Amino acid sequence: MSTPAARPTTSPTVLALDVGGTDIKAAVVGEHGMVVRTTVPTRTADREPLDSVLLAAHRLWESVPAGYHVTGLGIATPGIVDDEDGVVRGAENLGWREVPLRSLLEEELGVPVGIGHDVRAGGLAEWRLGAGRGAGDHAFVAVGTGIAASVVLHGAVYAGGGWAGEVGHGGRTTGEPCACGGRGCIETYASAAGIARRYTARTGVHVPGAREVLERAQAGDVVAADVWAHGVDGLGELVAGLVRTLGLRLVVVGGGLVRAGDALLDPLDAAVRRYLTVHPVPELRPAGLGSDAGTYGAALLGWGASGRGTLTDLVVPV
Amino acid sequence: MSTPAARPTTSPTVLALDVGGTDIKAAVVGEHGMVVRTTVPTRTADREPLDSVLLAAHRLWESVPAGYHVTGLGIATPGIVDDEDGVVRGAENLGWREVPLRSLLEEELGVPVGIGHDVRAGGLAEWRLGAGRGAGDHAFVAVGTGIAASVVLHGAVYAGGGWAGEVGHGGRTTGEPCACGGRGCIETYASAAGIARRYTARTGVHVPGAREVLERAQAGDVVAADVWAHGVDGLGELVAGLVRTLGLRLVVVGGGLVRAGDALLDPLDAAVRRYLTVHPVPELRPAGLGSDAGTYGAALLGWGASGRGTLTDLVVPV
Repeated sequence: MSTPAARPTTSPTVLALDVGGTDIKAAVVGEHGMVVRTTVPTRTADREPLDSVLLAAHRLWESVPAGYHVTGLGIATPGIVDDEDGVVRGAENLGWREVPLRSLLEEELGVPVGIGHDVRAGGLAEWRLGAGRGAGDHAFVAVGTGIAASVVLHGAVYAGGGWAGEVGHGGRTTGEPCACGGRGCIETYASAAGIARRYTARTGVHVPGAREVLERAQAGDVVAADVWAHGVDGLGELVAGLVRTLGLRLVVVGGGLVRAGDALLDPLDAAVRRYLTVHPVPELRPAGLGSDAGTYGAALLGWGASGRGTLTDLVVPV
Repeated sequence: MSTPAARPTTSPTVLALDVGGTDIKAAVVGEHGMVVRTTVPTRTADREPLDSVLLAAHRLWESVPAGYHVTGLGIATPGIVDDEDGVVRGAENLGWREVPLRSLLEEELGVPVGIGHDVRAGGLAEWRLGAGRGAGDHAFVAVGTGIAASVVLHGAVYAGGGWAGEVGHGGRTTGEPCACGGRGCIETYASAAGIARRYTARTGVHVPGAREVLERAQAGDVVAADVWAHGVDGLGELVAGLVRTLGLRLVVVGGGLVRAGDALLDPLDAAVRRYLTVHPVPELRPAGLGSDAGTYGAALLGWGASGRGTLTDLVVPV
């Protein structure tokens, strides 16, 4: 009887891509966390977003260290994403319309691919690995350049054919015109971009972002305080709407604006209470994964597609 | 070999109770529809609602015809109903608080009991037997004395610990005071009761209900037209909110107000479109079971509790 030769074994990884309007955050994610990470500009003078996605995927693949192999790819994108069919129905800032992203990537790379909406992927990551870990049904609200929500219902992220959680637009008939064609959409005054833009419109002073508006408000600038308060009030109405519709007891707040910490969460809690009369007030919890939520979410989609489950053991540096 | 004696067989039924503020609608429901139906006043000078429920249940049981037997009971009530725990957390108009209705009835009657919220039960019935038959995820909005919604998500009615769909209250900080303690709640101006009350408040003319307000509007009464339009606009905002949050493509509209037919649905469709900018406009469909939706829903809850499944073969007279 011969002794079998020791078989070389490698650890599984997935490639994770979080496609944003400016950058694609890309990482090789193994069972114990990120192994490699990189960033690729989404659009350059001579490269369209889809080519950037392929470039990022190939660059990641080539960077997989010895001792690892690739079992799948997960990708999170903005827009209207049909997770089940694997198609991006529309993503304005990427110029995508009915892009069969999953089959494109599966053909290109020869591994199973999971695709999802960036905010739902972020919500999935916060639920499995971050601030919502172990929670029952709840919502994740991401407030950054835009505003969107992701809801965990009946123990799964709810996609609604790609439209669930797209709460940033619609719902009003009066107010400031919005890029979507509507008026008074919450993105116009409660997103980080909206808060900065409104402050500049009222004062003529250019500010790089919502953080500076908050700092000015804290320093006594009454216009900044008014713009900030109006934005937070809108977010309170939004969170209250989720609670009124779904009876949720926990809302994880993420996106760039949550970096403001209690300066956001304390007045937001007060605003939510103003908009709820009979419903229990939900716990508001800051997101735990910061700007990596989308990348981790993409990794989870990739693990799911590769048939390796939900990867709840992933070690996330907090 | 002896011929076995013919065994007498009886058909299964459930007792179904739909508890309203004024009446309890009660029926014995068999596999082919209602067998017996009756009504018991919810409250009399010398009888509290809980005693009326027991009276209705016993009266139903005694009325079960020969050839039938009782396998379970289903009950739908207003208020905050925890379907899973079988407890009515609170129902103001019944004076109930933390009433363990399921265990009370199971002890009293000795059959399995299913309990649920009246509007979610109505939504369940419309989904299984009525206008939503065969539909995927969708919403049921009931507009009567109050306003509430019921949503089918991931293929099941979503309860949210009893709070899902309680959209009649909260969401505003200005407007007319509401019984719930808030201001501007949609029930104050878009419920059938709210529409009638607002017309009377503005004209001094007493009207028995919203139907008369609509009739006056159709006859050229400008105040009636304004009150009706304002109510419909609020319902449009509500429906749009469900679509924005959950991406639903179908909304079944029920409750007393839907008897107005196209006089409600046409302007409601226009209002929904005003409040949606990027989302697909949902189909609005009038409910099919009328005021029996809650009773059929209770029957389905009873069939579910008795382990007999969802009874989709039930013949419903339309």
